[in-house]
Amino acid sequence: MSRKTALVVSAHSADFVWRAGGAIALHAQAGIDVTVVCLSYGERGESAKLWRLDGMTLDRVKSERQREAEAAAKALGVADIQFWDLGDYPITLTQETLFRMVDVFRKIRPSFVLTHSREDPYNRDHPLVSQFAQEARIIAQAHGHNPDEKVVGAPPVMLFEPHQPEQCRWMPNTLLDITPVWDQKRAAIECMAGQEHLWEYYTRVALQRGVQAARNSDKTIKYGEAYEAVFPHVVETLVPTEGR
Amino acid sequence: MSRKTALVVSAHSADFVWRAGGAIALHAQAGIDVTVVCLSYGERGESAKLWRLDGMTLDRVKSERQREAEAAAKALGVADIQFWDLGDYPITLTQETLFRMVDVFRKIRPSFVLTHSREDPYNRDHPLVSQFAQEARIIAQAHGHNPDEKVVGAPPVMLFEPHQPEQCRWMPNTLLDITPVWDQKRAAIECMAGQEHLWEYYTRVALQRGVQAARNSDKTIKYGEAYEAVFPHVVETLVPTEGR
Amino acid sequence: MSRKTALVVSAHSADFVWRAGGAIALHAQAGIDVTVVCLSYGERGESAKLWRLDGMTLDRVKSERQREAEAAAKALGVADIQFWDLGDYPITLTQETLFRMVDVFRKIRPSFVLTHSREDPYNRDHPLVSQFAQEARIIAQAHGHNPDEKVVGAPPVMLFEPHQPEQCRWMPNTLLDITPVWDQKRAAIECMAGQEHLWEYYTRVALQRGVQAARNSDKTIKYGEAYEAVFPHVVETLVPTEGR
Amino acid sequence: MSRKTALVVSAHSADFVWRAGGAIALHAQAGIDVTVVCLSYGERGESAKLWRLDGMTLDRVKSERQREAEAAAKALGVADIQFWDLGDYPITLTQETLFRMVDVFRKIRPSFVLTHSREDPYNRDHPLVSQFAQEARIIAQAHGHNPDEKVVGAPPVMLFEPHQPEQCRWMPNTLLDITPVWDQKRAAIECMAGQEHLWEYYTRVALQRGVQAARNSDKTIKYGEAYEAVFPHVVETLVPTEGR
Amino acid sequence: MSRKTALVVSAHSADFVWRAGGAIALHAQAGIDVTVVCLSYGERGESAKLWRLDGMTLDRVKSERQREAEAAAKALGVADIQFWDLGDYPITLTQETLFRMVDVFRKIRPSFVLTHSREDPYNRDHPLVSQFAQEARIIAQAHGHNPDEKVVGAPPVMLFEPHQPEQCRWMPNTLLDITPVWDQKRAAIECMAGQEHLWEYYTRVALQRGVQAARNSDKTIKYGEAYEAVFPHVVETLVPTEGR
Amino acid sequence: MSRKTALVVSAHSADFVWRAGGAIALHAQAGIDVTVVCLSYGERGESAKLWRLDGMTLDRVKSERQREAEAAAKALGVADIQFWDLGDYPITLTQETLFRMVDVFRKIRPSFVLTHSREDPYNRDHPLVSQFAQEARIIAQAHGHNPDEKVVGAPPVMLFEPHQPEQCRWMPNTLLDITPVWDQKRAAIECMAGQEHLWEYYTRVALQRGVQAARNSDKTIKYGEAYEAVFPHVVETLVPTEGR
Repeated sequence: MSRKTALVVSAHSADFVWRAGGAIALHAQAGIDVTVVCLSYGERGESAKLWRLDGMTLDRVKSERQREAEAAAKALGVADIQFWDLGDYPITLTQETLFRMVDVFRKIRPSFVLTHSREDPYNRDHPLVSQFAQEARIIAQAHGHNPDEKVVGAPPVMLFEPHQPEQCRWMPNTLLDITPVWDQKRAAIECMAGQEHLWEYYTRVALQRGVQAARNSDKTIKYGEAYEAVFPHVVETLVPTEGR
Repeated sequence: MSRKTALVVSAHSADFVWRAGGAIALHAQAGIDVTVVCLSYGERGESAKLWRLDGMTLDRVKSERQREAEAAAKALGVADIQFWDLGDYPITLTQETLFRMVDVFRKIRPSFVLTHSREDPYNRDHPLVSQFAQEARIIAQAHGHNPDEKVVGAPPVMLFEPHQPEQCRWMPNTLLDITPVWDQKRAAIECMAGQEHLWEYYTRVALQRGVQAARNSDKTIKYGEAYEAVFPHVVETLVPTEGR
Repeated sequence: MSRKTALVVSAHSADFVWRAGGAIALHAQAGIDVTVVCLSYGERGESAKLWRLDGMTLDRVKSERQREAEAAAKALGVADIQFWDLGDYPITLTQETLFRMVDVFRKIRPSFVLTHSREDPYNRDHPLVSQFAQEARIIAQAHGHNPDEKVVGAPPVMLFEPHQPEQCRWMPNTLLDITPVWDQKRAAIECMAGQEHLWEYYTRVALQRGVQAARNSDKTIKYGEAYEAVFPHVVETLVPTEGR
Repeated sequence: MSRKTALVVSAHSADFVWRAGGAIALHAQAGIDVTVVCLSYGERGESAKLWRLDGMTLDRVKSERQREAEAAAKALGVADIQFWDLGDYPITLTQETLFRMVDVFRKIRPSFVLTHSREDPYNRDHPLVSQFAQEARIIAQAHGHNPDEKVVGAPPVMLFEPHQPEQCRWMPNTLLDITPVWDQKRAAIECMAGQEHLWEYYTRVALQRGVQAARNSDKTIKYGEAYEAVFPHVVETLVPTEGR
Repeated sequence: MSRKTALVVSAHSADFVWRAGGAIALHAQAGIDVTVVCLSYGERGESAKLWRLDGMTLDRVKSERQREAEAAAKALGVADIQFWDLGDYPITLTQETLFRMVDVFRKIRPSFVLTHSREDPYNRDHPLVSQFAQEARIIAQAHGHNPDEKVVGAPPVMLFEPHQPEQCRWMPNTLLDITPVWDQKRAAIECMAGQEHLWEYYTRVALQRGVQAARNSDKTIKYGEAYEAVFPHVVETLVPTEGR
Repeated sequence: MSRKTALVVSAHSADFVWRAGGAIALHAQAGIDVTVVCLSYGERGESAKLWRLDGMTLDRVKSERQREAEAAAKALGVADIQFWDLGDYPITLTQETLFRMVDVFRKIRPSFVLTHSREDPYNRDHPLVSQFAQEARIIAQAHGHNPDEKVVGAPPVMLFEPHQPEQCRWMPNTLLDITPVWDQKRAAIECMAGQEHLWEYYTRVALQRGVQAARNSDKTIKYGEAYEAVFPHVVETLVPTEGR
């Protein structure tokens, strides 16, 4: 039987690190093949430090961003990282790109999907990508889209934490214990040389979500990641899982 | 090691049947001791059919309601059912009663708690009981309340489905597959002779939630119960559980 | 056959004028007996102008407020106005008072009920009265409350407009054309000598709601009152009524 | 004088049956000409059963879907059903199509409009169509659009029930009694051979909404349809209509 | 040092008058250069009165609307008013136009930005323009967009009052005292000959917001404008400012 | 002229430190007299560490908590700290206590008020205290309450940050720069020996809110506190203040 997979749809090439690095490392460690699709490099809107260097060009920013993201992906155990280079601020999402994303869904058949929040007044690309990823999932379920292929089921979609969570009306209803893989997430974070000002910020996010995860369970948890599940959890028991 | 337990806090003596009968039977079957506390009999507000009988009195309504609830509890495999007889329409919830509920939390140390929705414009007792159950849980966590006792941890609280869900601003974010115990739930429902008009209504609710649970997973599910989790789920994986 | 009735539950003795004067006059004119219950006089919190007079006492404020309210009620065609004198800022609402209100529901069997908004950060009495009126209605539906009496049906509850509507999270989903009775409402408003600063404010409210009512229909409407319906409208057609 | 009309804007060719079949039959019976515009056939995303047949093609799916929809329309008494064949999953809505819809509004001048909910995480076409229909209505009101034509007024827009209502943040604030035409709606439902798994689901929806409609009124109602009104109701009385 | 500036992004050529005329005059008086960008003339959707004149054409409507807007801008002390003539009902917002707006942000570097509400079921152009203005601001902050230019900071964005505020789910959390410039706002309003039916409506809006501003402070305020701040206020004291 | 004042209403004796310590120190430094009312010691529910000591009693917990709070108050420059010893888990808030709080409002006439969030599913005392403080403010505005006293105006109410902000549906719409007084806040935090596990948690909160405050302005800010304003800001300019 083939291995389980997961899909992370990241607007810019660093989002998957800050927002989902723990989930990626945790599931990779558990034998799940994680595919990360970076729709853009964030070359215009999220590379301020690089643009301050002399003689910087769009191509140099992109290649530097790709290098960083690949190093981070390696640190996290990502099975496949793809760079679609669709531009940013604003990102350009066509129907052709949408169907390409459908193909990814159909090919890997993910057990779950991670992507951005529905709203973000600081970042227009993030909600556009969230909707794009969700729409691709819906089309991948449609029997009449490439009818010879097998449709996908109903993988959960989890929205990862935006930079200023309350302002995005994002509600963390799922807290993931990432303590066992924290060192990997921190290592991946440190690959992001261009955004060093965020290293400690997202380390603190992990610590706060860890305290909250412990508080909402009876477990010892130090580092956490928070998600908003789009769909109801379908369960066979209401008893929480035991801690590690 | 002692058995796991669960606690159901029911405003009136029939609520646990319509709203949580599946969860009760399912967990009882899994070896969990389920305690149901019926705070009142619903003798004034939810016994219209009985009051239409000649010569009915409050005491007769209560004893009839108790008889029905005990039969239903038996059908569901309830370990302990308690009737606190606090009155209804309106229910009277004092500090003494609150501390009695804290004692229940401390004594059984439930793995999870089921109770009513936060709002219900058709029923004032329901939101009062929801808040009461949640407050008791908070006090049971306080080290200074009966400091010689062991405090409880952080059991999840799940709010069960009200009669007109949208009007109660209740959001089902957890769907429980109750297919394996549906026959028991239906048997318990049929113990409620005084509210026969609700039998088919709640059978349809179970079928609708079953279809939705199947739609939100890749499982074959016929009957479901829906819950709104008050607190975030704390998890160690984002991969959904496999179906039965 | 007996006449139709309506019930207005007003926290303070002037609220029914500003907030529901048009509805009262309109339905009175249509042959409906409108009962207004003023739970308090607003003697402490809504009588600033009176308190500026020399030698004012609580009793004098109350009697002046009652006099004004009776004059306004007369101008509007109120069938019965009651003053329960329960105090204000804060209002005191006991179970005895609740059952007294249930008796009103049972006695008059209103076709609809008007009361305050669910929230009001400027006025604590208003949301308490809203909940009180709604709870009384629920108990009046309970067969076990005074089982020899006939229970009431399901009269719509409409929440009238608070002073600063958006801050109260109140949503006007029903706009009533009060143009035919505007003169009566204005006359009633002018009975409120103690709150003259509100005369023009609520005249402008009526004009704004009138413009909005016209905009949301194809009718000629000059003055309006806005309400938030608590419960769904149950209808037999989706075609809007014709204008006058 | 010309007959009254109503307009139903349906994303896929079966939506009008499940979601608005009762309203259509009820108003048709009352002498109102109901126009149904099916923007697509739902040929890709809502025809799973057909795609399981051997040798199925997009054209065959479409013609089968059209045949079913026409039969259902006939059962409901639809005056005019149009198939615009705009594709689905995703639907393609251009400015040209928008103006075509404006023409429909201008031509039939509907007394009310029925369309989809504002959100639907399971179906991207539905919210797009809702916005499209609402935008067409707005443009039809603009004096400068084809200035020689008469603009439309302000017909109410009612959003019909999505498949998983709470997840779509859809709030049923209007309940329509469809008991008198239930047999017609059921007959129309049974025309939808390709989606037989939905027959009982939507029959149960009608029964649940019927119970709720009865509960929110004092009428005897067996079958109902629920709607969310986009705009405030403009009324001349707050007294609910009498039952049949 | 250069003067401070502010930017008003107005969907149609009259919106800035009704919705932000007070803010414009107040800040102009304080020595701030206010730029108003009218994306369209509102020639199709908001010029009913002009279209009733004989022989009216689109060009004549536009030039009349421009004349009125220029007169109003002059009355308010606008430093620069621009007419982009992008069409209305629906407005057409391309990426080219977006970058043109980014250029405006980069050139004037506004201290604050005023634009439309996020939702408006009566007007599709308004929310589109709100999103457009916010997106331009985000891109103006991106170092990789025209990297030789200086990026903008984080100017507050204030959403001005729509015609039917509650229906737009717009929440006024900032009240501006415009009493000192009311005469100018009224003069500007009276330049809008084509929409005379709105003169008194928006005068009443100013009076109501004035009463509310006084009520929420301890100041004497007669006329106000209300805004919804998109982002948190960043402050160095929680003490409210003294009144004039 | 007398000095300005501010009022902090704290459910338990440590809340003012974690949640408002920066605001207190900042305004004290600016010459404002800050009164802190600790309604209870948090002796039952928030003193877990103390209860783990041998031979602990309720009185010893209270005196230890008072000692810590007084030391923190001193570090922050609090002008007056009061301990009302009303009990916790649950707190007991009578009308007598309410009027005592009204007296505080009347006596100090605060320029602003800080208290708890409206909701908190982890802590029942917090929302009760929030409502209590808001109600006292309303009564303090009532001319008929102790009519010989001068009523208070309309001081802003700011709700401070709860432990798990999103779960409390609390929205930070005001960010206060507390960088200049951070050392004092940290010193006050370190007075709370009984809750050492929270020291780093709330230090991280301050850092995160500091980053966000900088991001929402063009200022250099390291530490912040976030608040939700209950009422609209009433302002005379929309230009943000300059940084320090």
